[in-house]
Amino acid sequence: MSMRIGLEHVEDLARGAAILGTGGGGDPYLGGLMLRQALQDGRTVELIDVEALAVDDFVVPFAMMGAPTVLLEKIPSGAEMLAALRTTERFAGRPVRALLCAEIGGVNALLPLVLGARCGLPVVDGDGMGRAFPQLQMTTYHICGVPAGPMVMADEHASTVLIDTREAAELERLARNMVVAMGGSSSVCLYAMDGGAAQRSLVRGTISLALGLGRVVREARRGSSDPFAALLAYLRGTEYYQHCRILFAGKVADLLRETAGGWAQGRVVVEGLGSWAGRSVTVQFQNEHLVAREGERVLAIVPDLIALLDSATAEPITTDGLKYGQRITMLGISAAPIMRTPAALAVFGPAAFGLADPFTPLEQLG
Amino acid sequence: MSMRIGLEHVEDLARGAAILGTGGGGDPYLGGLMLRQALQDGRTVELIDVEALAVDDFVVPFAMMGAPTVLLEKIPSGAEMLAALRTTERFAGRPVRALLCAEIGGVNALLPLVLGARCGLPVVDGDGMGRAFPQLQMTTYHICGVPAGPMVMADEHASTVLIDTREAAELERLARNMVVAMGGSSSVCLYAMDGGAAQRSLVRGTISLALGLGRVVREARRGSSDPFAALLAYLRGTEYYQHCRILFAGKVADLLRETAGGWAQGRVVVEGLGSWAGRSVTVQFQNEHLVAREGERVLAIVPDLIALLDSATAEPITTDGLKYGQRITMLGISAAPIMRTPAALAVFGPAAFGLADPFTPLEQLG
Repeated sequence: MSMRIGLEHVEDLARGAAILGTGGGGDPYLGGLMLRQALQDGRTVELIDVEALAVDDFVVPFAMMGAPTVLLEKIPSGAEMLAALRTTERFAGRPVRALLCAEIGGVNALLPLVLGARCGLPVVDGDGMGRAFPQLQMTTYHICGVPAGPMVMADEHASTVLIDTREAAELERLARNMVVAMGGSSSVCLYAMDGGAAQRSLVRGTISLALGLGRVVREARRGSSDPFAALLAYLRGTEYYQHCRILFAGKVADLLRETAGGWAQGRVVVEGLGSWAGRSVTVQFQNEHLVAREGERVLAIVPDLIALLDSATAEPITTDGLKYGQRITMLGISAAPIMRTPAALAVFGPAAFGLADPFTPLEQLG
Repeated sequence: MSMRIGLEHVEDLARGAAILGTGGGGDPYLGGLMLRQALQDGRTVELIDVEALAVDDFVVPFAMMGAPTVLLEKIPSGAEMLAALRTTERFAGRPVRALLCAEIGGVNALLPLVLGARCGLPVVDGDGMGRAFPQLQMTTYHICGVPAGPMVMADEHASTVLIDTREAAELERLARNMVVAMGGSSSVCLYAMDGGAAQRSLVRGTISLALGLGRVVREARRGSSDPFAALLAYLRGTEYYQHCRILFAGKVADLLRETAGGWAQGRVVVEGLGSWAGRSVTVQFQNEHLVAREGERVLAIVPDLIALLDSATAEPITTDGLKYGQRITMLGISAAPIMRTPAALAVFGPAAFGLADPFTPLEQLG
């Protein structure tokens, strides 16, 4: 499978990525603007299957690191992305054959396509999270033994910083420090690997998935049919995400949101409407939604996906965008099997976020 | 000219480097310990003339960056030095043929020899300051147009960080930030260049000079002759440093020393003894001694060298080591011509340190 991504795909992709962002991952509006600019004048970027890579092809994930709020005020020009890529190639002593996506949830879904359009490299269909997560090591690349470093960061002056260390915690510490010195957001290349490693570690097909999710919502709106029914029907036809259901629907009755430890932390209480009237569900978040509970009963829990959508339009809502009184429909979606292994759960399961609940697959709950 | 540096040279070299440190440059005692360890079991390191380099040889200065006080508590193991060198070579895609010294004043005089002994590379006789200075850009390398970056830093875990930027101020800012993240001191390779650039930009022969200064003090002590007379006689036989004299001698009567803006800033007032009785000289410093004044009259001013030595032993005294009541002899020494050009004075002349006085060569003063 190979397809060309053009201007006509940007809106669907941005919306689908925001659904998979599960409340976090930054605002895909910005990524959409950047991708639109990169694809103007009929330019396209090739989306390829990971099986199309040779096992010794050099491939590298590209992303932005830092505060999404800063990114909004300091929009990357593209020069810093290219600088990060060139420094990665120079240190490795070989050219990059294709770009990977680190995080399909939110703005980072779109940026590898922006860079691919600018430098003519294809982008592999898939990512390292199958959703959004807040930390560098929370990837299937890490779980499958791909080292995060040498990691390259670039700022808006196209200055690059390469960090080469064996310790993942040291990498996170030095890089987090450098993001601050670079003004709060940086372009990064990390988890550079060969095609064989990408084939072992990728959450496959997630760029196509985001495209599809965005498309069915658009088509349902145009046909005035139920976008939620369309989303569930689409997900049930996929390989990984087929376990899915509407967890709850209602209006936002209470909201606690604070910036603590560098994260957007808090919880939102939703009071039921319609067939859910008289009931109440609380969603706890740390950048992304972690767990949805009705009283003590868990409805869905990380790494399974909890997406909050506007009940009227099925437009995804980030934790930043939550407001008192909003009508919300809550979707639960099963994570890919590669994200539910014991090794994966040790890195981004409930305990990694300080939750006492064990992981229970969505299909065994409710 | 080529010679081998062995254990028997360490004491002389450390003392001579401290004289050229003009009050700053860190404690060469530590560098001496490290060099002694690197040279044990009969190992040596080759000191070569810069003319022995081929014009396209890849050569790189090595130094420690950060707070000398931290260095004392976090002694480099040698592994981080090698890591910095290897990352420099990997990014450049070619092997380093020889090491350069960045700063002959203080501990950084000895560290290229430590690394050279460990990895078998020769060290070029010369440096980029002809003394000690507090900032990255205060080098003849910079003045002669050699870019400081890509700069490589390494910490005690042998983690390396490479910073590639065209802006000298941006390099200083990112590197200074990273030194702090690395715990206050780092091994650095910067101003990597080819042999031709080294031949144009080096302050030549300063490692031999430090060795000679240390040696004549040791020999004078053993022969119970006047070490100051021996120092002056030795300096007058050199190519660059032949203008020199005793500026003043007396005891420390007042001392103001504060850490401000990351520097050791202050002044020391010396009251005359012997033929200088009844007179008083003030030396102002920012890490290194900047200017010596008797009233309004300037006796010597940066970049010319002002060294404070113990009057009894001719042992050099750093600004950290100054104490009330100390008997001190003050030497003024002319800087090399390459350090007195208008371009050089713009970077490390009096105005660069906020002094209103113009630069006047030592030989035209007093």
